[in-house]
Amino acid sequence: MKLVYVVPGPIDKKELERRGEILCEWISSDVEIDIVRVEEGPASIESMYEEFLSIPATAKKIYELEQQGYDAAIIGCAGDPGIEAYREITTRMLVVGPGMSSVHAAAMLGYRFSILNASLSTIPNSYELVRKAGLIEKLASIRPLNIPVLELSNDRTATLEKLRRITERAISEDGADSIVLKCMSMGFLHLAEDLQDALGIPVINPVKTSLMASEFLVKSGLSHSNKAFLQPPKLAQCKVQSIDELYVRVNSK
Amino acid sequence: MKLVYVVPGPIDKKELERRGEILCEWISSDVEIDIVRVEEGPASIESMYEEFLSIPATAKKIYELEQQGYDAAIIGCAGDPGIEAYREITTRMLVVGPGMSSVHAAAMLGYRFSILNASLSTIPNSYELVRKAGLIEKLASIRPLNIPVLELSNDRTATLEKLRRITERAISEDGADSIVLKCMSMGFLHLAEDLQDALGIPVINPVKTSLMASEFLVKSGLSHSNKAFLQPPKLAQCKVQSIDELYVRVNSK
Amino acid sequence: MKLVYVVPGPIDKKELERRGEILCEWISSDVEIDIVRVEEGPASIESMYEEFLSIPATAKKIYELEQQGYDAAIIGCAGDPGIEAYREITTRMLVVGPGMSSVHAAAMLGYRFSILNASLSTIPNSYELVRKAGLIEKLASIRPLNIPVLELSNDRTATLEKLRRITERAISEDGADSIVLKCMSMGFLHLAEDLQDALGIPVINPVKTSLMASEFLVKSGLSHSNKAFLQPPKLAQCKVQSIDELYVRVNSK
Amino acid sequence: MKLVYVVPGPIDKKELERRGEILCEWISSDVEIDIVRVEEGPASIESMYEEFLSIPATAKKIYELEQQGYDAAIIGCAGDPGIEAYREITTRMLVVGPGMSSVHAAAMLGYRFSILNASLSTIPNSYELVRKAGLIEKLASIRPLNIPVLELSNDRTATLEKLRRITERAISEDGADSIVLKCMSMGFLHLAEDLQDALGIPVINPVKTSLMASEFLVKSGLSHSNKAFLQPPKLAQCKVQSIDELYVRVNSK
Amino acid sequence: MKLVYVVPGPIDKKELERRGEILCEWISSDVEIDIVRVEEGPASIESMYEEFLSIPATAKKIYELEQQGYDAAIIGCAGDPGIEAYREITTRMLVVGPGMSSVHAAAMLGYRFSILNASLSTIPNSYELVRKAGLIEKLASIRPLNIPVLELSNDRTATLEKLRRITERAISEDGADSIVLKCMSMGFLHLAEDLQDALGIPVINPVKTSLMASEFLVKSGLSHSNKAFLQPPKLAQCKVQSIDELYVRVNSK
Amino acid sequence: MKLVYVVPGPIDKKELERRGEILCEWISSDVEIDIVRVEEGPASIESMYEEFLSIPATAKKIYELEQQGYDAAIIGCAGDPGIEAYREITTRMLVVGPGMSSVHAAAMLGYRFSILNASLSTIPNSYELVRKAGLIEKLASIRPLNIPVLELSNDRTATLEKLRRITERAISEDGADSIVLKCMSMGFLHLAEDLQDALGIPVINPVKTSLMASEFLVKSGLSHSNKAFLQPPKLAQCKVQSIDELYVRVNSK
Repeated sequence: MKLVYVVPGPIDKKELERRGEILCEWISSDVEIDIVRVEEGPASIESMYEEFLSIPATAKKIYELEQQGYDAAIIGCAGDPGIEAYREITTRMLVVGPGMSSVHAAAMLGYRFSILNASLSTIPNSYELVRKAGLIEKLASIRPLNIPVLELSNDRTATLEKLRRITERAISEDGADSIVLKCMSMGFLHLAEDLQDALGIPVINPVKTSLMASEFLVKSGLSHSNKAFLQPPKLAQCKVQSIDELYVRVNSK
Repeated sequence: MKLVYVVPGPIDKKELERRGEILCEWISSDVEIDIVRVEEGPASIESMYEEFLSIPATAKKIYELEQQGYDAAIIGCAGDPGIEAYREITTRMLVVGPGMSSVHAAAMLGYRFSILNASLSTIPNSYELVRKAGLIEKLASIRPLNIPVLELSNDRTATLEKLRRITERAISEDGADSIVLKCMSMGFLHLAEDLQDALGIPVINPVKTSLMASEFLVKSGLSHSNKAFLQPPKLAQCKVQSIDELYVRVNSK
Repeated sequence: MKLVYVVPGPIDKKELERRGEILCEWISSDVEIDIVRVEEGPASIESMYEEFLSIPATAKKIYELEQQGYDAAIIGCAGDPGIEAYREITTRMLVVGPGMSSVHAAAMLGYRFSILNASLSTIPNSYELVRKAGLIEKLASIRPLNIPVLELSNDRTATLEKLRRITERAISEDGADSIVLKCMSMGFLHLAEDLQDALGIPVINPVKTSLMASEFLVKSGLSHSNKAFLQPPKLAQCKVQSIDELYVRVNSK
Repeated sequence: MKLVYVVPGPIDKKELERRGEILCEWISSDVEIDIVRVEEGPASIESMYEEFLSIPATAKKIYELEQQGYDAAIIGCAGDPGIEAYREITTRMLVVGPGMSSVHAAAMLGYRFSILNASLSTIPNSYELVRKAGLIEKLASIRPLNIPVLELSNDRTATLEKLRRITERAISEDGADSIVLKCMSMGFLHLAEDLQDALGIPVINPVKTSLMASEFLVKSGLSHSNKAFLQPPKLAQCKVQSIDELYVRVNSK
Repeated sequence: MKLVYVVPGPIDKKELERRGEILCEWISSDVEIDIVRVEEGPASIESMYEEFLSIPATAKKIYELEQQGYDAAIIGCAGDPGIEAYREITTRMLVVGPGMSSVHAAAMLGYRFSILNASLSTIPNSYELVRKAGLIEKLASIRPLNIPVLELSNDRTATLEKLRRITERAISEDGADSIVLKCMSMGFLHLAEDLQDALGIPVINPVKTSLMASEFLVKSGLSHSNKAFLQPPKLAQCKVQSIDELYVRVNSK
Repeated sequence: MKLVYVVPGPIDKKELERRGEILCEWISSDVEIDIVRVEEGPASIESMYEEFLSIPATAKKIYELEQQGYDAAIIGCAGDPGIEAYREITTRMLVVGPGMSSVHAAAMLGYRFSILNASLSTIPNSYELVRKAGLIEKLASIRPLNIPVLELSNDRTATLEKLRRITERAISEDGADSIVLKCMSMGFLHLAEDLQDALGIPVINPVKTSLMASEFLVKSGLSHSNKAFLQPPKLAQCKVQSIDELYVRVNSK
């Protein structure tokens, strides 16, 4: 099995390599994984606007990756931006979102989970993500960490301490019995593992969980349903030859 | 009051003018309306992929239109693609979606409505739209017309007849007491009005309804909530100066 | 277009005229509006019992108003008492409720709204109203002002200040991103406008919003569904000649 | 224990006596029951309009009956019209609705129930009743018998046969495992008992069930919550002396 | 009518007799009641594990009791453990659960109820019970008393005082307008009655309420639906002769 | 990682070995798996009664297996009977249910899934399982195959053909875009794989999926929440020394 992890934006090359190494550590011994970045897009995703900005170029990348023979692609953003589109334009390669993987993992482990967001501005997206997963009844709360994504690693100890304080309130006030960290940058800082040790309840790392969910589904012989995510009609009816032709310009008409 | 109707893609100029004239007929005498097109994007929107493709260039257009002093912008696609993003990047100008306007109108007129989609491929989007509107309990069914958007006007009589047959089943089998046509091209063909006469129950034209909903909200002194649709943090915290800087390229880092 | 605003009880004549003047200020230039009162009923509506008391005489008035050629009638109480009955006995004239208009407006502007009630005693009615609108998922909370309706204007400054304090809690504790004032007397005191300025989020005036919602629906060519609100069978089957004959007395049998 | 059954309209005296005798047969040996009629109101209740018409005079009657010392009053209409109002104006006497009693009985006996209505026109009321009971998840379907209430007894055999055909479809097509007859006139024709024998699943007679539910709650030492159904504020604050003063006329102001 | 109350475990004989006497006081004069205990099982039920432990031996007892001619059996545990199984293996005798009886009683008396549990460990079961009853929308909260079941009677005054403090918070913070005590041992200590006097809102005693609910349903001519609770197929198809044969051992194969 | 698959009843030894071999084929190369049977219990599980019968002896087995050092135990029944109890009495070893694993897999692959049950009698259990998973909104339908579990393999071709016919109706009539086979015996007949090839949409094999879900969660560093599934209080408070002491007999008191 061959997986690919797609960072949906122009992440720094060194950080890309650091993340790639972590992925290799986490992946099962019988599985291969590559990491790629999309060369243009938002620097980080902290709003619906940036989610949408990331999609067209990432879609193109995912379309190409399917042709390179990967079994599954993992979207490198915990909001799963564009997942429905990526599933529409792939026919064989599974596309997995970390957000989706994480909330289903949480639902399998207890009665009610809370989500920890990096920022206040993406709470509605998180709420929407849970609703799309069909799991709104399992959601205890969504609480923001209020640290900019790009500054999470500036002081890892302070970040961890703030996370602990907020998740303790999610447990005692909101009734959460497991926690989802909804931010890939948190995932690559191994914060979930430390937090789980401190709290004694499951804390879900969206990076690790999305890798393992991909293995789970591919090894179960499953991919996303082509009946749920229909190919764009113009492509299905051969009115266009590739996804590139679905984007036109005034002077091209 | 000054409204602007934004076609989120490179529609033909003549058709743009025809639509503009219809809008002027429908608008109230104390309101002005302009129509603009986005110069690049999908030829029509019949998939989630095309919805997402339309958003970045349309967002830029809407951002500029706010600076030109419009009171409200109407997204010219019944799926309301990108509405959360457009609301995040505007601070004073209301952004209205025809899908949203139509399902709330339907909910105000009866107990349960059905949605008529142009194609099967957008049924999940319609379902999601109703869910985001909070109106899933009011939804009787979503049924597809299965005529490509760009071919709806080829034989208007046949289109109308097929619409009538399908909506009659929505009424008798699904329990609908009003109907939403979820397609702007249907709206500009005046199909809702003929269908309403034939069926004797409300049939909602998404174009007309989105105009009137814009008037409704602006005249009520209301705009979308800046607390619901927070400005992208990098913009709010002045880390970037405009929305353009939120999109970066690898070699720019 | 000709609208009529129906106060469902024997309001003081001078106050009726004051309200009529405000309505004329708010209405669009291409629309006419009249105000009428029902000559008997509750002095104000602060309980389910008073809601029900108001309906029979108001129904009769609305039945007559349809025959006078109005395009839409607005119920002058934010609980929309009797709306289903009024819609059953009208066949052409739209009947609009301010409660319904306000919660749909709120739902179009954000993710979650709170309702401000005059009194604790009508909270269950407000909850029921939101449920009937199909919008329970959008409801953040309902909070009471605890000032008797007939005393709201005694000290407008104090009323506004109390409103502000309570709505601020609805925002910070309940997660509301817009506010519905569910009381017509508040509406005629222009409290929504001042509160909106103070809070910076949408605050919905049920009077203004019900006027504009009536314009919205009538200009969209829509009226309530005769399939949702069936005529009373005895009337539909001509067993009685008018709604008056639906009410009988023991000695008349 | 002393119960009273209140027919909310000017029913024929002989029929009133016939019903009274049936109630006496059904009631437990340690319980007394009286039957009363309201002297004015709708001849039968087949619309929301007639529901609302019945409430003011019935409320007055129920207010008086509490003062006569009854332990519980049963509303003699399966739509439970006005129950919230009657509960607001009573402080000690329990008020029970047959609709409410029947759907809770059904919910205690199986997974999903269907409701049989006399007419199409009251289906929305039935739906609302189930929603107010909090039992919407248990509802398989609502199907109309389409026989006018006042003609149900004209041909009892034909009525029973039509009931059987429709309930069989509710079982096989809608998945019902119990049936609620939502019409008091059906109840007094003993149709539920015959239908239960024919179908082999529980069929709920709203008359018998409302009697027994009243016994159930009174013998359990329970009455409706005065915190849920608050006294009308003007009465609670002694601004009026009785419910009569809550209804005023223009010339009385 | 003849009822039987089944304690699902090896309760002390003296306590069994004390409980039997209380049941006889509460039951209606035209009804007989017996009390029996199951000779093996958990000492008290404070976890899902103990719920499940109690079921096989209790099922056998209930199977025999039906053959002795009882009209209804009441499960002597407020979690209703095993009720679906007991209903599958009985064909004529009604099986009633106190939990189910109590939450439906609460739903008939107000808008929202809270449940008081003996211990934290059974909160998920209570939540599940409400969900199975279809009444999740009516649930204000579940709060634990945190006193072991077997120690509730050690200091009745302290228990009552703690109950009062916690239920007052359920009322003021969670919006409850009635209270369900979900513990049979509380029921046999008459705590509900004292608490109801102190709080002024309905407080439901699960023991008394389950007796009266049994009378309610049996007197209404109703039993649980044999279509909802199908006989185990091996029994229905005569592949085994009694429920005993449904349990096999390795060496018996 | 070391997994154990627990058949919750006295399955035939040869069939046990056959199943064990299949498990070994499916498991990842870096994982070990054992299969064990419980020596007494139901021959197969086709009713709630048989579900409950299987739990006490299986609980004991699972309790012992934890002490033998397994990382996860898989319940060998697609109804997940007793899972809450098994999680209460384990503190480190994950307990996984195939039903739960399968519905979450389906939810990750499309919008709506249907469940194929062996028999009609377990449809309510399946419905309950989906509800407990929090996924009721994703459920298109549950349809029975109506072949006794112990006869599924008698004519594999006929079983497959019947499955295909029924799932095609689930797709076209109920709107399913993926299918869950909810029966372990079907899983060990490789029916899901053949059906998936025939239908072109995901068909979930509960056996394979539960293995892979166990790997997924264990490799993600996760186990079920000890806060959701609290230890039985008597054990937690050391009033008993082992789970055996939680089961007592009359003469032992």
